[in-house]
Amino acid sequence: MKHPKIPLAQTVIQLCKAKNIQHIVLSPGSRNAPLTIGFTHDPFFKCYSIVDERCAAFFALGIAQQIKHPVAVVCTSGSALLNYYPAVSEAYYSHVPLVVLSADRPKYLVGIGDGQTINQENVFKNHIQYSANLKQDLNPENQNAFAEDLPIMKSIENKVERFLGLQQSVQQYNETEINKAFNIAITTQGPVHVNIPFDEPLYQMVDALTVTPEVVPIPEKNIVSENYDAFAEIWNNSKKKLVLVGVLAPNSVEQHFIDVLAEDESVLILTESTSNLHHDNICPSIDKLIGALSEEELKNLQPEILLTFGGLIVSKKIKKFLRTHKPAQHWHVAENGANDTFFVLNKVFKQSINSFFQAFIPLTKTLKSDYNPFWKNQMAIRREKHVQYMDLIPFSDFKVFDVLLKSIPNYTQLQVGNSSAIRYTQLFDINPTLDVFCNRGTSGIDGSTSTAIGASITRDNPTVFITGDLSFFYDSNALWNNYIPNNFRIIVINNEGGGIFRILPGHKNTDNFDYFFETKHHLTAKQLCGMYGFEYATASSENELSVALSDFYNTSKTPKLLEVFTPSRTNDDILLDYFKFVK
Amino acid sequence: MKHPKIPLAQTVIQLCKAKNIQHIVLSPGSRNAPLTIGFTHDPFFKCYSIVDERCAAFFALGIAQQIKHPVAVVCTSGSALLNYYPAVSEAYYSHVPLVVLSADRPKYLVGIGDGQTINQENVFKNHIQYSANLKQDLNPENQNAFAEDLPIMKSIENKVERFLGLQQSVQQYNETEINKAFNIAITTQGPVHVNIPFDEPLYQMVDALTVTPEVVPIPEKNIVSENYDAFAEIWNNSKKKLVLVGVLAPNSVEQHFIDVLAEDESVLILTESTSNLHHDNICPSIDKLIGALSEEELKNLQPEILLTFGGLIVSKKIKKFLRTHKPAQHWHVAENGANDTFFVLNKVFKQSINSFFQAFIPLTKTLKSDYNPFWKNQMAIRREKHVQYMDLIPFSDFKVFDVLLKSIPNYTQLQVGNSSAIRYTQLFDINPTLDVFCNRGTSGIDGSTSTAIGASITRDNPTVFITGDLSFFYDSNALWNNYIPNNFRIIVINNEGGGIFRILPGHKNTDNFDYFFETKHHLTAKQLCGMYGFEYATASSENELSVALSDFYNTSKTPKLLEVFTPSRTNDDILLDYFKFVK
Repeated sequence: MKHPKIPLAQTVIQLCKAKNIQHIVLSPGSRNAPLTIGFTHDPFFKCYSIVDERCAAFFALGIAQQIKHPVAVVCTSGSALLNYYPAVSEAYYSHVPLVVLSADRPKYLVGIGDGQTINQENVFKNHIQYSANLKQDLNPENQNAFAEDLPIMKSIENKVERFLGLQQSVQQYNETEINKAFNIAITTQGPVHVNIPFDEPLYQMVDALTVTPEVVPIPEKNIVSENYDAFAEIWNNSKKKLVLVGVLAPNSVEQHFIDVLAEDESVLILTESTSNLHHDNICPSIDKLIGALSEEELKNLQPEILLTFGGLIVSKKIKKFLRTHKPAQHWHVAENGANDTFFVLNKVFKQSINSFFQAFIPLTKTLKSDYNPFWKNQMAIRREKHVQYMDLIPFSDFKVFDVLLKSIPNYTQLQVGNSSAIRYTQLFDINPTLDVFCNRGTSGIDGSTSTAIGASITRDNPTVFITGDLSFFYDSNALWNNYIPNNFRIIVINNEGGGIFRILPGHKNTDNFDYFFETKHHLTAKQLCGMYGFEYATASSENELSVALSDFYNTSKTPKLLEVFTPSRTNDDILLDYFKFVK
Repeated sequence: MKHPKIPLAQTVIQLCKAKNIQHIVLSPGSRNAPLTIGFTHDPFFKCYSIVDERCAAFFALGIAQQIKHPVAVVCTSGSALLNYYPAVSEAYYSHVPLVVLSADRPKYLVGIGDGQTINQENVFKNHIQYSANLKQDLNPENQNAFAEDLPIMKSIENKVERFLGLQQSVQQYNETEINKAFNIAITTQGPVHVNIPFDEPLYQMVDALTVTPEVVPIPEKNIVSENYDAFAEIWNNSKKKLVLVGVLAPNSVEQHFIDVLAEDESVLILTESTSNLHHDNICPSIDKLIGALSEEELKNLQPEILLTFGGLIVSKKIKKFLRTHKPAQHWHVAENGANDTFFVLNKVFKQSINSFFQAFIPLTKTLKSDYNPFWKNQMAIRREKHVQYMDLIPFSDFKVFDVLLKSIPNYTQLQVGNSSAIRYTQLFDINPTLDVFCNRGTSGIDGSTSTAIGASITRDNPTVFITGDLSFFYDSNALWNNYIPNNFRIIVINNEGGGIFRILPGHKNTDNFDYFFETKHHLTAKQLCGMYGFEYATASSENELSVALSDFYNTSKTPKLLEVFTPSRTNDDILLDYFKFVK
């Protein structure tokens, strides 16, 4: 097998293998040639080639989101690296283990005016779990590098020995740093950056490895010993306990824990589409339940204890509610830190959700209360009104989501874009066989399509990605990707602009608003489908939509995209009226 | 006139006006609504709306590259900001005054799990001239903000007075910081970042301004008093003086200074296409001159003094040459710092090029030498061989550049993409009426089209942008832009991948190479032209190219794109053989 000649490249690659980092997303470049050569010659790795680094990183994020194990992105030096940043920050806030491997010039060539050279070290400082700034291998043939790295050598005699000693210490330093970065990516489930300086020549190969890096095992977790008794006592004396679940991967919590909670009358569980938790007693669409409540109802809803787990919360209404009607207790369960989202966080259980429930639930008892029954009943009423409303409204964004979400086949992965798309989705009861994902770490519109494609390649089941037009066109380069499975489906709701701005309190229907907020356009996805080999279908009415969907999910020889055109000027009123109607 | 109600938004906008920052590139968002409202309601500003922030920032960079005065980009909070980073780093290394105005959540809402919220302060730290982290206006109606900002208030009595005092000090701090940032952008000709936290409500307007920020004038420059005599003496005793010019905007140096230097036999002036300097005695294509020189010729070329000015150097050959055949003296003239590109920099004249020559040239005398005559003669020989070679070679990248560069009408702005495109361009004598630009700060392929479009809107003369296929598709969202003038022309040289990698010492023509280095594809620009309203033409032979060019530059009702397909497998040999041939 061929390997890159540069020992540092061998080290990085062998440690990826040792840490089972198998998916490697490469972007073209020369400085990263030693890594590209090494990864692509070793059949252990699944290598992908994606040119636009912004897309490459979101694609890798999508894979890592699914496998929950580090995925590497590899780029050349210079601004290439900066194009990873949107995905790095999404990974940071969504707890996705993304490993950035950036090739760099050796230090003596940085800051002297060479091409494709920037200050790469610690460049993601604000949003990274760890930055490993590696040192280049010493190169005795390169006097410039030599002069910088080994000033001491000039004055000593046994240069060769000294050189070998110094190279060994560089090698050791690098091994330690790489191990540390990879272990942190695994334990924190977050992004890390390894910056890797290579000196020329870059393209040389050898037949046998010349270094064998030490593999440092992941440090054992400190078992936090909690005394749950005091908390259980508060719990058992509270008649209004709200459990609020943020973004959560499917199967993160054992169902029997959820069942116990859901069947306790004093517990109300609110989930979001992205929570991937299901039970008949759970209220799965918060905004439908709490949109347009009276002050009395809000007071009734105010919990004594708020227990949260999972990632970020989509619903603005619940955040506003809990910030104004604060619970006396807010406890959060998470291995990797917690947000004080409602300004009253007073306890973080630093452990997995299952281990928390394992310890805590045996200490609790169910309590008679009208808390859950009342809100469950409210939910039933609103569900009914929701159905009535859907029958009443004309063709619009809202109506389209109603039709679409019913149409998706069982056991599909559903990826949803920001922001309107996920907000509409949240108003529906989602088919519980679907796994639902959305980039809610930074809630950006910048990489949803690439993420969905990355996520799709990890599954045999089909993936459906629903997105708005701005988000879709923003990430149009996502389709420049050789790995899109034929069972991948994109649905673009095209309302010719940022429909979400019409719902916000701006001054809509003025030229200024249409142009600078809604950013009206007349683009369609048709040409992009032609360019990238997607089958293209379109619908502009309920009838057309039903026709288009009739065979949309059937197996096909290419991926497909369905573009649904909706009337932008009525969408916002239909949504805003909904909250009054379901009350 | 309408203004945003928030005083901080008024302050930013008024200071932009005071500093004559007129071009404002806005991306849609809600958090930045106060800025969007303010800028778009004031006819002083020329506002642009561009959705993809990566393109928006390069577009702004293109405008600023031309007007040499700050241009602002304005985005909402969250990952939107990170998409600016590639352009920010290009601006940093190319000395372009780009002002980033990022809306942010107020501090009490950062890091608590709100949507579209990241750690924006100092996020461009590695590549920014200044980061101003503003403070939100105090809001007495918001208890959460209040609690964070004014803990002291809880214990004192005269709350209103105290509040006004504190708000005044916040206002003062912000005014100082904004002034400082804008002044630094102007004086350093570099990027600055102003992070601007806004609390809700965001969309309120008022009819009259409520604040009048102080305008701090730009600090006077320290006049550096140099003693040029010692340098003039070295100069006047050196028979081999090399003047090497990097990226330089047109009309940066008064021609009579260049004339004096060019007519001195002991001075050899080497320029690049991006130097925008012309004289018959100048050698304008370095690689043509110094490709494949013998050791003896290289020694002959080695200067005693190297004088450099302008930005980064494209030619790798000259960098390699000067690093191995070091001059005894390397002097650089620049107001904003210098790179020690050849590891022998021993003097930086921190002043404008014109002021340097104004002082220095009167102290110099011309010297008899065969330095310039010899190399001028060499150049003439190579020019002739260059013409012969162009007649010999078949249709290929190189041939296409020969045809294209001859075809461009006088007084056109020529924008060139990275990296093959600019490297080929460098081998030709450029029509001196053309102004030539290329993003050589980071030499990225990521935003060349957007930059060219931004640059084009500042001129009545037409702009021609020549780019490779990878770079073009990378920045395909550049075309999602309402401001592209009808006299804008794009020429895509499509060799179905990264042709430059075939010229580098990789192991070409293996599957692995084609896939991961060259990244072969079969895309064309046709569908993008349909999508974005460009007239599309194509050519795959010399004859077709000549037909396509016959009316390509004529006035038209839409911008146009010409896609030239070249045979990827022969391009590299034709280029590499060239250097042997012209010797």
